[in-house]
Amino acid sequence: MADINAIAKQFTDFYYSTFDSSRSTLGSLYRDNSMLSFEGAQTLGASAIVEKLTNLPFQTVQHKVSTLDAQPSSATVASLIVSVTGLLVVDDSPNPLQFSQVFQLIPDGGSYYVFNDIFRLNYGA
Amino acid sequence: MADINAIAKQFTDFYYSTFDSSRSTLGSLYRDNSMLSFEGAQTLGASAIVEKLTNLPFQTVQHKVSTLDAQPSSATVASLIVSVTGLLVVDDSPNPLQFSQVFQLIPDGGSYYVFNDIFRLNYGA
Repeated sequence: MADINAIAKQFTDFYYSTFDSSRSTLGSLYRDNSMLSFEGAQTLGASAIVEKLTNLPFQTVQHKVSTLDAQPSSATVASLIVSVTGLLVVDDSPNPLQFSQVFQLIPDGGSYYVFNDIFRLNYGA
Repeated sequence: MADINAIAKQFTDFYYSTFDSSRSTLGSLYRDNSMLSFEGAQTLGASAIVEKLTNLPFQTVQHKVSTLDAQPSSATVASLIVSVTGLLVVDDSPNPLQFSQVFQLIPDGGSYYVFNDIFRLNYGA
């Protein structure tokens, strides 16, 4: 699955660097049927998703990926599921937050778009 | 998405109670094309997956689900992605471990099977 892992790495590198520098420009990665679940809140469609992400209540944010896994998500289409765990540093807080995020990427004209996006912070016991 | 959330809840209740009581019987939830990524190690197919899970180096285990999210994973088939975060208590250790797990469930004859399964422990900063 070398190809799939390389695609997942390339996607997450691009996604998180874009998120951390100018998250209002993430819209090109989503489509009208894309879904976001962010801390349990549901958002449908690229423009609503970008609005949701842009309005999150922090000024600066940095994602640090700890683990990255990818699997083919279909027997017939070259789509993939990407699962990420990592740390989130928000507004220079000294305490990073753990997060988990899952994407399903769908091939589209030589690239991929995000069909599913599920984000959760992970709190300890 | 009430139905999808109910399916996800029903599935995870069954999956984790079976895992925690007799994980050698989980094979009926997987198929020959099912994939497991467990802490980065890849396993393909129901029998190899059950062997992998059965041989994990602990005697007793208890999963406690903290968050559960579900989304439709296809525009054409009633499949779904289920994302779980939670705590794992292993062999009566006083320190639960945080975990993240992602499933893709595919409809099959009135029920669902697990096509994708990605499991990771989450370590702190």
